[in-house]
Amino acid sequence: MSENARPLDLLNTARGKMVLVELKNNHAITGKLVAFDVHINVTLENAEEKKEGETLRKLGNVFIRGDTIILISPTI
Amino acid sequence: MSENARPLDLLNTARGKMVLVELKNNHAITGKLVAFDVHINVTLENAEEKKEGETLRKLGNVFIRGDTIILISPTI
Amino acid sequence: MSENARPLDLLNTARGKMVLVELKNNHAITGKLVAFDVHINVTLENAEEKKEGETLRKLGNVFIRGDTIILISPTI
Amino acid sequence: MSENARPLDLLNTARGKMVLVELKNNHAITGKLVAFDVHINVTLENAEEKKEGETLRKLGNVFIRGDTIILISPTI
Amino acid sequence: MSENARPLDLLNTARGKMVLVELKNNHAITGKLVAFDVHINVTLENAEEKKEGETLRKLGNVFIRGDTIILISPTI
Amino acid sequence: MSENARPLDLLNTARGKMVLVELKNNHAITGKLVAFDVHINVTLENAEEKKEGETLRKLGNVFIRGDTIILISPTI
Amino acid sequence: MSENARPLDLLNTARGKMVLVELKNNHAITGKLVAFDVHINVTLENAEEKKEGETLRKLGNVFIRGDTIILISPTI
Repeated sequence: MSENARPLDLLNTARGKMVLVELKNNHAITGKLVAFDVHINVTLENAEEKKEGETLRKLGNVFIRGDTIILISPTI
Repeated sequence: MSENARPLDLLNTARGKMVLVELKNNHAITGKLVAFDVHINVTLENAEEKKEGETLRKLGNVFIRGDTIILISPTI
Repeated sequence: MSENARPLDLLNTARGKMVLVELKNNHAITGKLVAFDVHINVTLENAEEKKEGETLRKLGNVFIRGDTIILISPTI
Repeated sequence: MSENARPLDLLNTARGKMVLVELKNNHAITGKLVAFDVHINVTLENAEEKKEGETLRKLGNVFIRGDTIILISPTI
Repeated sequence: MSENARPLDLLNTARGKMVLVELKNNHAITGKLVAFDVHINVTLENAEEKKEGETLRKLGNVFIRGDTIILISPTI
Repeated sequence: MSENARPLDLLNTARGKMVLVELKNNHAITGKLVAFDVHINVTLENAEEKKEGETLRKLGNVFIRGDTIILISPTI
Repeated sequence: MSENARPLDLLNTARGKMVLVELKNNHAITGKLVAFDVHINVTLENAEEKKEGETLRKLGNVFIRGDTIILISPTI
């Protein structure tokens, strides 16, 4: 654990991997993390919108605005 | 998947194509993406406002303020 | 569709024309677009406040603060 | 209608005149516009707080923080 | 009424006097205005928290964060 | 009462003393003020979370993000 | 208690230790603090999401956006 560790390091290592993105409206989106920026705007591939574990719909490619995001967690 | 990929790249490739824009008020707007900026302000052509899949009304050209947007997804 | 198109272009071409402004409080205001700025603050002439299609009242000249706006759509 | 018209022009011409200020909490305040700034902070004289047309109370001089304001409309 | 009048002028003249501060959570705080800054952060002396005219409790000295404030009105 | 008084002066004199911090979610936290910054982020020692006067739990050391704070009041 | 103490000092000393992160949506997340930045974006290891003391699910590594955080408290 380095003193220089930064929060965006986790997102950097998650590029190209599946992540869970939780939104402020209680929905979640899963997908492969393609890109992110300092506002935490992210783009995902093969994205699916979920609520309480159920897939609501498939979104494919999606841009998510950073200020609607609560958390991002890489899934195994 | 490049380390240099940025979230706005997805919006760039979506210019001139149909997109779904989901808003914080639970409405969605579909239309052809004409322009966007770093605030994620966007303009659409042939826009239609939708709620739960139904078309509420046709808006034609529309400017959408970025801070009301949850996500933008290109539709096939 | 130019790669240089910007969202504010739509507002520029709408100057002097009737627009619909939808607000975050579910009200809408129609009127002739007089001016706007980068915050999307706008001023309208002959403005009318509406809810679900009904005119609630006539406002005449009005300044609308940008951060309360969801979308702006030129009306024919 | 000049291409150089700016939203704050309307507030400039309203200085010293009666205005209606609508707030995000559904209240409105009327009074004589004394001053405003780029954040749309405003000060009024002889201000009265209103809800659904009724005067709730007289405030006299009042400073209103810009981010609570929906719209400002000069009254005749 | 000068063209150079600014909203903070009202707060400047209210220093050392009793003011009413209305908050976004529907509470109000009265007290002697000691200081304010450009964010409209304020400090009061002999402050009392009120709701619908009743004193909820005495706070003494208090720092109020500007972004929770709707309006500030000097009381006679 | 100096014309140069600033809101953060109150927080400076409260360092090392007990303060009440009221949050936007209607909870309050009491504790000894250790540090604060211009965003009004604060850290407390011996902190206790309270609701309607009752201690909900003891937090010990705590960092509170400034934008969740309504007010800070030194307690005797 | 130094006059130079800053709120982020507490987070610095908490690196590598278990913390409780309370969110604006009433959920809490516990985990080992890996990194944080000036926006209070944080990353945790071995994170668990909790509500009213019960573990809702295990998140593993997680990035939490700063503007959703109420408080962060090191746990013993």
